[in-house]
Amino acid sequence: MPKIIVEVMPKADLLDPAGKAVASALQRKGHKAVANVRIGKRIELHYQSTPTEQDIEEAKQIAADFLSNGVIEDVVSVTVEN
Amino acid sequence: MPKIIVEVMPKADLLDPAGKAVASALQRKGHKAVANVRIGKRIELHYQSTPTEQDIEEAKQIAADFLSNGVIEDVVSVTVEN
Repeated sequence: MPKIIVEVMPKADLLDPAGKAVASALQRKGHKAVANVRIGKRIELHYQSTPTEQDIEEAKQIAADFLSNGVIEDVVSVTVEN
Repeated sequence: MPKIIVEVMPKADLLDPAGKAVASALQRKGHKAVANVRIGKRIELHYQSTPTEQDIEEAKQIAADFLSNGVIEDVVSVTVEN
């Protein structure tokens, strides 16, 4: 099924406590190369048929209006996957 | 900062209530083209320097062991982003 993938991450200057917790756990477990971890969302919008240009524009609007909170999150990408 | 991006989604045959709720809301708001929605995670592992082959292998292990629950989730991709 064709999809549009929307990726949302917490803003760079915002604390991400869950990410910090994972980063600390990885350090403790010996994965010293991982300096930091941030956890965001990956949202799949499924379509019956290949998304049109208009669907993609609509998906960008949906991403900004519904799927992310502009105060604390950034939409990092909106891509089509067939 | 170089990153490894790990993407985790709920398994296809599993219910995703949050995704269902978003899909219903989009239908109500007139976005009829969106047939279904699934919500997963996008996790960024940050590195001080460009990840080596070994770092990537380690990240795949981390993705399987720490960042996803194999019973209900699939790791859909592990990619380097410089």
